[in-house]
Amino acid sequence: MTAGPAAPVTVVVGAGLVGASIGHALTAAGWPVHLVDAVPSHAAVAAGLGAGTAEPADPDQVGLVVVAVPPRVIADVVGESLDTYPHATVTDVGSVKAGVLDALWERPVDLTRYVGSHPMAGSHHSGPVTADGELFVDRTWVVTPHRKSAESSVERVVELVRACRARLVTLDVDDHDAAVARVSHLPHLVSVLMAGHLTNVPEEDLVLAGQGLRDVTRIAGSDPGLWQQIVGANSTAVLRELRQVAVSLDRLISAVETGPADPALVRELERGVDGTRRIPGKHGAAPVPYEQVVVAIPDEPGALARLFGDVEAAGVNVEDIAIEHDASRQVGYLTLSVQPERAEGLALVMRDGGWTVV
Amino acid sequence: MTAGPAAPVTVVVGAGLVGASIGHALTAAGWPVHLVDAVPSHAAVAAGLGAGTAEPADPDQVGLVVVAVPPRVIADVVGESLDTYPHATVTDVGSVKAGVLDALWERPVDLTRYVGSHPMAGSHHSGPVTADGELFVDRTWVVTPHRKSAESSVERVVELVRACRARLVTLDVDDHDAAVARVSHLPHLVSVLMAGHLTNVPEEDLVLAGQGLRDVTRIAGSDPGLWQQIVGANSTAVLRELRQVAVSLDRLISAVETGPADPALVRELERGVDGTRRIPGKHGAAPVPYEQVVVAIPDEPGALARLFGDVEAAGVNVEDIAIEHDASRQVGYLTLSVQPERAEGLALVMRDGGWTVV
Repeated sequence: MTAGPAAPVTVVVGAGLVGASIGHALTAAGWPVHLVDAVPSHAAVAAGLGAGTAEPADPDQVGLVVVAVPPRVIADVVGESLDTYPHATVTDVGSVKAGVLDALWERPVDLTRYVGSHPMAGSHHSGPVTADGELFVDRTWVVTPHRKSAESSVERVVELVRACRARLVTLDVDDHDAAVARVSHLPHLVSVLMAGHLTNVPEEDLVLAGQGLRDVTRIAGSDPGLWQQIVGANSTAVLRELRQVAVSLDRLISAVETGPADPALVRELERGVDGTRRIPGKHGAAPVPYEQVVVAIPDEPGALARLFGDVEAAGVNVEDIAIEHDASRQVGYLTLSVQPERAEGLALVMRDGGWTVV
Repeated sequence: MTAGPAAPVTVVVGAGLVGASIGHALTAAGWPVHLVDAVPSHAAVAAGLGAGTAEPADPDQVGLVVVAVPPRVIADVVGESLDTYPHATVTDVGSVKAGVLDALWERPVDLTRYVGSHPMAGSHHSGPVTADGELFVDRTWVVTPHRKSAESSVERVVELVRACRARLVTLDVDDHDAAVARVSHLPHLVSVLMAGHLTNVPEEDLVLAGQGLRDVTRIAGSDPGLWQQIVGANSTAVLRELRQVAVSLDRLISAVETGPADPALVRELERGVDGTRRIPGKHGAAPVPYEQVVVAIPDEPGALARLFGDVEAAGVNVEDIAIEHDASRQVGYLTLSVQPERAEGLALVMRDGGWTVV
């Protein structure tokens, strides 16, 4: 509460991917950052890579503490930090918010100085070595004020979000948890359901697996221990969604039972299409229907390099690329996603350059 | 049955993506191909692009007919083809096999000359313009002989698969349908279930959507009319899988209800991880745990082209690439998937070349 120039130091507790990335971002923004980790060598590695210093901070100088630890210990570490740093605003970066607040509510801590938050960024990498100060740029970072949080504390966390160049979204704690149950935790469990089903599928059937199955099951490969904590912490909201899916599944089964002549099945399939169209474009932008330009990559040394040279020379902003490269065929296709109004021009330039556009 | 040099011509019925691609592949292999389509201009376009000729074939000269039409008309077109081309083996390329065979079984046609097949290749593109003679190279192509099919007819369809350079898998009709129900139709419906659920999710929640949700729901965006036909044609096998998933979903709901302290939830999550590990590598190869080398792409003109030049100069076979490119940040990361034993060497060479490897 007595922040300002008198308490200019930030402490990041937890030097994993998210904590160390915050350290990098704040260091780049000129904030003095002290890194703390239950495993001191992790803090030292992150510090060595430029995410801050691993030296202990003077508690009276600390104006902000960012708690970036595994879900099950967040409430404890937040509580300890509120005690250890008497002038600091404390935030956490966990993906579920209500449980932490509920746990803290029962303790004799100064809750005016706690404001939860949730940066919606991550990576399939983990650990301080893959940390990146740009991890949060243009990503959504939810800040979740509560009934007791002081306005100055909320302001401090908003400054953190701004310093990391993320997109600020302010949500009530329960609204946040309901939203991530719907767009993150439920999809994870649906993926787990499909992937788990494969444990009963004969191996010879799996030879017929295509990209669709791989896409649907990809996130099910994530750390079960972490997801046990996330789902456990948000079980009320997750159960509400799961039970709705169980009802939808029964309806889908009935639709398949009635047969394709009945419109029920096609209605379910159309509902799926409608749902995919509601997902906004990446980074929270409005959905952009990019157009794809597919170019054959000839089996020649340096072909990819020449191809990218020509794409860049065309001056078209490529939003996304995908390559289908087959080691045994030595041939591939490059899919370039571009704004619809640029697709024709790019295709033309590439053809003029002698490339096969399909 | 009296095939051989006397009936050397192949007719492809249906000049969409799959039919026209078969036309290209066979033409490249030196087979004379005649294209037929309910919309004659489609056959003409495919012929103009080199997939064969749109001229009618002499029925007595036709040794093979490939039926590449929408699911609901396959049985009719196969039946007509058996009548029209008296010496021809007839195959289809539909994704469900038992229904077509059952429908034909009741008709007065020469079933010894029919052998179903299913090329496991496709694309999110469709139509003759995106056809590609290499579409089937190293892809699985299932051939499904039945009790009445003549050995010479099976041989003829195997020759077709070989000419398209696909990987031959021979399966019983019902085994095929059960397999695709498990690895293709069920994943599709699970994706539809999740995507359909999004139609009830508030728009402000969807702003928090990440890549996981996009992956799980991607295939749900496919043509509902086509999937109505596919699921309808394989409803018995699909229902068996859907009902098992309903049981698993109930078990998952119970596991979430018991809470994270109980091992039931983590067991479900681990089952998901086990399932993802059972999916073989692309093109049916054994699962290869590629290693990823992630290189930062600087914000400089020509950077991508130089980067690919250096990757190719390193002489490492890149199995897959992915790019994270953000138009507003003008910065990106290139993920190169390589054989594990080549990852360290590639990282070293790239670092030596002045690139930032993360």
